[in-house]
Amino acid sequence: MPDFLNYDDADFETRFLALLTAKREDSPDVDDAVAAIIAQVRAQGDAALIALTEKYDRLTLTPDTLRISTAEVDAACAQVSNDDRAALELAAARIRAYHARQLPEDAQWEDEAGATLGWRWTPVSAAGLYVPGGLASYPSSVLMNAVPAKVAGVGRLAMVVPSPDGVLNPLVLMAARIAGVDEIYRIGGAQAIAALAYGTETIAPVDKITGPGNAYVAAAKRRVFGKVGIDMIAGPSEILVIADADNDPDWIALDLLSQAEHDESAQSILITTDAAFGRAVADAVDARLQTLERRKIAGASWRDFGAIITVPDLDAAVALSDRIAPEHLELCVNDAEALAARITHAGAIFVGGWTPEAIGDYIGGPNHVLPTARSARFSSGLSVMDFVKRTTIARMTPQALAAVGPSAVRLATSESLEAHGLSVQARLDRLNQS
Amino acid sequence: MPDFLNYDDADFETRFLALLTAKREDSPDVDDAVAAIIAQVRAQGDAALIALTEKYDRLTLTPDTLRISTAEVDAACAQVSNDDRAALELAAARIRAYHARQLPEDAQWEDEAGATLGWRWTPVSAAGLYVPGGLASYPSSVLMNAVPAKVAGVGRLAMVVPSPDGVLNPLVLMAARIAGVDEIYRIGGAQAIAALAYGTETIAPVDKITGPGNAYVAAAKRRVFGKVGIDMIAGPSEILVIADADNDPDWIALDLLSQAEHDESAQSILITTDAAFGRAVADAVDARLQTLERRKIAGASWRDFGAIITVPDLDAAVALSDRIAPEHLELCVNDAEALAARITHAGAIFVGGWTPEAIGDYIGGPNHVLPTARSARFSSGLSVMDFVKRTTIARMTPQALAAVGPSAVRLATSESLEAHGLSVQARLDRLNQS
Repeated sequence: MPDFLNYDDADFETRFLALLTAKREDSPDVDDAVAAIIAQVRAQGDAALIALTEKYDRLTLTPDTLRISTAEVDAACAQVSNDDRAALELAAARIRAYHARQLPEDAQWEDEAGATLGWRWTPVSAAGLYVPGGLASYPSSVLMNAVPAKVAGVGRLAMVVPSPDGVLNPLVLMAARIAGVDEIYRIGGAQAIAALAYGTETIAPVDKITGPGNAYVAAAKRRVFGKVGIDMIAGPSEILVIADADNDPDWIALDLLSQAEHDESAQSILITTDAAFGRAVADAVDARLQTLERRKIAGASWRDFGAIITVPDLDAAVALSDRIAPEHLELCVNDAEALAARITHAGAIFVGGWTPEAIGDYIGGPNHVLPTARSARFSSGLSVMDFVKRTTIARMTPQALAAVGPSAVRLATSESLEAHGLSVQARLDRLNQS
Repeated sequence: MPDFLNYDDADFETRFLALLTAKREDSPDVDDAVAAIIAQVRAQGDAALIALTEKYDRLTLTPDTLRISTAEVDAACAQVSNDDRAALELAAARIRAYHARQLPEDAQWEDEAGATLGWRWTPVSAAGLYVPGGLASYPSSVLMNAVPAKVAGVGRLAMVVPSPDGVLNPLVLMAARIAGVDEIYRIGGAQAIAALAYGTETIAPVDKITGPGNAYVAAAKRRVFGKVGIDMIAGPSEILVIADADNDPDWIALDLLSQAEHDESAQSILITTDAAFGRAVADAVDARLQTLERRKIAGASWRDFGAIITVPDLDAAVALSDRIAPEHLELCVNDAEALAARITHAGAIFVGGWTPEAIGDYIGGPNHVLPTARSARFSSGLSVMDFVKRTTIARMTPQALAAVGPSAVRLATSESLEAHGLSVQARLDRLNQS
């Protein structure tokens, strides 16, 4: 049974706070093990990758087979059905079109003092993409990470994907080919992150690493951060649906279950203005849980972290939603667009009952890598911006320096940074002489 | 003596690599101490802040005096000279004008499938700004952090600044007032970061924390990351000057010293096409080091980490500069603008001999919080973007869902995520019925 909460109940605030602060993830402390793996890869390079892949993936590699060859990718792609290929290509095209609009613009202008100011954006030179192996090896994640990198102009995109017992996922390789991934290595875990960050004989180091992974991968990403850039460390998935009574309870139930089936730690919450509708959705969830393939996972998530909250009006729904700051927010109400405009904190909004969240996971166009665990209060989903960086530019003329330089000298003096002041003053002195 | 390197020497690559990888910072491991301090603040709130401020800053506070009152800020501002105030106001106005151009734009469009797609930017609701106490208490840093936050539209900006023995820096408070800081607390160290992240009885928690600090502050920021957003963890400052012989060696020497005087771990490098000019700059540095107030710090930095590299041409200079990925890059050559356009990795570029880097520290307009330690390869300086976040938006019509939905179902099936597929299929079924 999920939690049933009523906004007007005396214990609502207490129970809502408990919901907000529920610890859904208990990551094992693998930091020492990860530190040792990173040190091993830095010291031994390819030999470490080969030893660790033998140990963890039961796969014997050589320096020559670390990389998945073009012929292997060809062979894998040949196994993909035309329909699957077409679906991946449509998704990639839509993701590419959406992200192309995110490319930031350079700027340059002359201000009233005569200074030329501006900035210039350049892509990261080389990026690494981590793709999990096994069950959570999702071709959609390959597209969501690789397409923005290539739209940004990343010159070299290296992908790592473990292949336990040598098994590769043809759809993952097909997605990598469609997205324009340049190199693919059959390694995973902390050792793959270390190889991307520090390089080995076979794998050149990258500047930025993105992509999801298990606790070892997350810990490794935290450790190499600074040496390279990383994307966010994502937590379990979440969905909040705000729905009025004018919806099919089964649709909403499926939307809630589409997060719950990801992970026993996932969280699905419904906020509704109609208590009876809330109960109908709960019944529909139970009915679907009878037959759903992943009913064990989805059922545990719904039982442990699911919630149905009845509110008196949409004002209350907006206020609660912003406190939750959900990763995914579905608005299934009349005039959903007006409601969307009132939301401040959310990773992605799905507007209206014809926009199930799963559309966003695959084919809507926006990225499905989104801030979890209330971090939408201060961060954004993955985008082209994660693969570019800004260089600011300033050019003073003698006249501009004459206008603003004396204030710089004064501020430098007030901060007791004499050389700062002198570097400006020496130039001002020259101007005064002439 | 700084390192003298010549691009054409046989040992150049070895020596350049040593320069690139020189470990300039040896941060003490304060992580356990910081964990204890954070736990204390979370458990005891204001009482912990009062106890820790007594211990570290020799200052007795009460819950009522944690916050610096408006009257105190008034009194401090009254001590600031008119010239200092005018310099701060000019700097704030120029920083504001530059950063106002960084405000990102919302977007919304309808694509060929009939889906409405887009995104919306919203400011972080509350931000915290850490300002160091003592010698490194810089009013310019207050402006560089607070102005972008306010330009972004941050509603509540809370500043923390330790006041050892009760001593406040009037210019810091003046800068906070000019920048529009909303609340100021006289606390510092890891305890101040914990208070901003978790809140106490007196201090409401914030969503994002920025600003420089010592090893304790940096460790605390790393620890609260995830609960709140943080800016980069900045390393020691760096400057790279590329200069031809057509410069005054004394100007270039002062520019190099203006980074060296920050910190014994700072690094100043000159790349020049003229070996004799390089020697002249080295002589000028030595001459200035005779009298510079901070000659001990600047001399140690220059001796331990300074370098003068002679290159055969500017092509080589560009290649080396991109390998260094400098925080600050000064281009003192003919047609410096053309050279700037060839640079890929740099935090900030100062174009031409009339643009000493110190202008950028105070009054140019661009931010002086910039990526250090080669992280300009993958990250950018502080900007308005650090105080906003993006919510993506998607709205499908029934027609749009009919067009792209089947591909989503196919991809969901290929990933064995049945509920994902069903949430789309249930809607497609309705369309097929009607």
